[in-house]
Amino acid sequence: MTEPTTSDRDVRFLADWEDHTKFGAVEGSIGVERQAASQADGEQRKWFAELLETNGFSVHRDAIGNQFGLLELMPGAPYVLTGSHMDSQPTAGRFDGAYGVMASAHACIRVAAELRAHPERARFNLAVVNWFNEEGSRFKPSMMGSSVFTGKLDLETALATTDPHGISVRAALDDITERGNFSGLDVASYAEIHVQQGRSMEDDGITIGLVNATWAAHKFEFKITGEQAHSGSTLMADRRDALLGAARLVVAARDLVNEFDDGLLHTACGEINVYPNSPVVVASEVQLLFDLRSPSSEVLRDAYDSVMRTVEKVQREDRVEIEIVAEHSWAQNPYPEVGVELARVVAEELNLTHDRVMTVAGHDSTNMKDVAPTVMLFVPSVDGISHNLNEFTRDEDLIAGLHHLTGVVQRLAEGALAS
Amino acid sequence: MTEPTTSDRDVRFLADWEDHTKFGAVEGSIGVERQAASQADGEQRKWFAELLETNGFSVHRDAIGNQFGLLELMPGAPYVLTGSHMDSQPTAGRFDGAYGVMASAHACIRVAAELRAHPERARFNLAVVNWFNEEGSRFKPSMMGSSVFTGKLDLETALATTDPHGISVRAALDDITERGNFSGLDVASYAEIHVQQGRSMEDDGITIGLVNATWAAHKFEFKITGEQAHSGSTLMADRRDALLGAARLVVAARDLVNEFDDGLLHTACGEINVYPNSPVVVASEVQLLFDLRSPSSEVLRDAYDSVMRTVEKVQREDRVEIEIVAEHSWAQNPYPEVGVELARVVAEELNLTHDRVMTVAGHDSTNMKDVAPTVMLFVPSVDGISHNLNEFTRDEDLIAGLHHLTGVVQRLAEGALAS
Repeated sequence: MTEPTTSDRDVRFLADWEDHTKFGAVEGSIGVERQAASQADGEQRKWFAELLETNGFSVHRDAIGNQFGLLELMPGAPYVLTGSHMDSQPTAGRFDGAYGVMASAHACIRVAAELRAHPERARFNLAVVNWFNEEGSRFKPSMMGSSVFTGKLDLETALATTDPHGISVRAALDDITERGNFSGLDVASYAEIHVQQGRSMEDDGITIGLVNATWAAHKFEFKITGEQAHSGSTLMADRRDALLGAARLVVAARDLVNEFDDGLLHTACGEINVYPNSPVVVASEVQLLFDLRSPSSEVLRDAYDSVMRTVEKVQREDRVEIEIVAEHSWAQNPYPEVGVELARVVAEELNLTHDRVMTVAGHDSTNMKDVAPTVMLFVPSVDGISHNLNEFTRDEDLIAGLHHLTGVVQRLAEGALAS
Repeated sequence: MTEPTTSDRDVRFLADWEDHTKFGAVEGSIGVERQAASQADGEQRKWFAELLETNGFSVHRDAIGNQFGLLELMPGAPYVLTGSHMDSQPTAGRFDGAYGVMASAHACIRVAAELRAHPERARFNLAVVNWFNEEGSRFKPSMMGSSVFTGKLDLETALATTDPHGISVRAALDDITERGNFSGLDVASYAEIHVQQGRSMEDDGITIGLVNATWAAHKFEFKITGEQAHSGSTLMADRRDALLGAARLVVAARDLVNEFDDGLLHTACGEINVYPNSPVVVASEVQLLFDLRSPSSEVLRDAYDSVMRTVEKVQREDRVEIEIVAEHSWAQNPYPEVGVELARVVAEELNLTHDRVMTVAGHDSTNMKDVAPTVMLFVPSVDGISHNLNEFTRDEDLIAGLHHLTGVVQRLAEGALAS
């Protein structure tokens, strides 16, 4: 019996990768819709569990629906955990999250084969994870599964969270039979690979991104309160239009960017909910999500001050009330330097172009890095298209990333970054 | 046996009026929620049918759920039709529409008693109508029942219209057993009374508004198309944000008003639907309703041109596409002068303060006036509050309006406005 060559293994990865894309595939596109605990998510999880079991993993689910595949090399030892998420935004790309999970499974398979051939080098066991609800489109907040796993979010609070149709996380997970009782995984270290959600790596001709920090951010949930009125007959001066107030904030968010140098501030309003949202009624209440992100804490502070001035002005001039219902913020959030350096060494050895990059988006590794030594990696995405059916990464980059992640996981399993 | 006095009859009207408000009553308010073909609408229709039958009307429903109560005085003769609508906007006032239906029923009862005592004066029969879905909040377009009745909207198209949950008008009417097969009502003339949805009558101390025209209007349904993208990581310059485009239109609608003299232009955006409406996704598609209304055709034309310039600018600067999916407009739309004059004469006789007023909002009479001689009346509304739980009209104004409508219906039944 001959061991499969690297090239055979890469072909097998690409075949499994191709297979995975059928779950939630959106007709007429290369993208998917696989929101957390949807039927498509459930079907993909069953398929993934079978793939893992076929390759010798034992599969488990925890109480918030995180799906784990364990490969035991050293009975009783802690685990090198690697993974990402398979849920998606509505009508989104096939790579976001899913690439990291699939590459992690294949990296574990390769490292296990290597360490079983050289058992004296193994120090830890291997585990792959498919985190529940990273996207947060159906159930808020995002990164739910890794937040519960790391103790940052209460399990019961998460399970009781409902989607816009009133279906709870608990009920949705039970519906796809993905709520389990696995617990107590002892994590030695964590690695994650993801497609970049931006185009700097492609612009710079970089194959491996060594993620060294997350941008600072400030996120608001505003409630704008006006007064219901007939939208035809009510005198303009008598109106208190909550949708108008919200629209002024959306416009201000975009215009605010121009006050800073290029690339120093990203702003967004992605979600708005309007009541009563009827053709002839002035809106009385609007919920608006409003995000500021920057690599610079100073820029973020100035932007925050500007938003507060706008809020004050809109309240006064448009006679609406604007309340901050929720807000959360984080400073520029570094990944551990030892992880970045490990990833650099592996990239050098594999002769892959690489550079340090920051991530604007959050990832499950943002949670994991606070509880375990963590390595976060990127591969390029064509034109940086993200949260879009047309998201695309070339096969050669997928394979390069798989090779790199395999190298990182192997070093972690051999004890790199171990305390 | 003594005939009830006017005062006894008014007490009875107010008692029935009080009764009617329990259907769809919103707890902790004086308002109602009774959208078209909802359970509350269905229950109120059953109650109203019983009220009519108790008072000698025969009750019928047509194929689009318009509810008619007929009082025959002159077998074979055409009918004086009077009514309005009992459906409401979400969390709306108790007076809007329902007052007209209840006043019409009582006016018919009074006129029938009078004409049965003096049969030589009767020329027409009497009918009250509760038009289906005037509000258009659940099913579009508004004024659905009277549009089908007057042949302006195809019956099958109307029945196939779905609400945001995909429920059709046909299914919703069947669910409350309010779809019938009555047809062929021969209408001699039409009268409608409504609370004013504005405050000019209250400001001017007027009890009866003689409605002589509807404001001109131009209504757009815009579709703004951008491109889904990650709302954190995508470069600002790469974004094509449909929600931003929509927000610029909402703001432009309001600011446009300032280009004209006070009261010459009303604008509104009451409904917006955003896809995918997810916290971290730049919106790719927004549907936005956008209305212009004016008493002046010239102002409306200038406003229209300004909107088109804004559309052009937003398309260019924000890199979104803006398509007019639907639009409809009407010129200043007069009610027949003979009807206004008839209403004036009745107001003089009853010694009620009165003035000619225009309506900004549309009413079922806007449809009816094109097929039959029509009288449209207003009573004042406190502060002009409309489409709001706090809408309020005083009992003395309700009674004055009932007396006035009774006078108008009696003259119509005796042959006024007959060709």
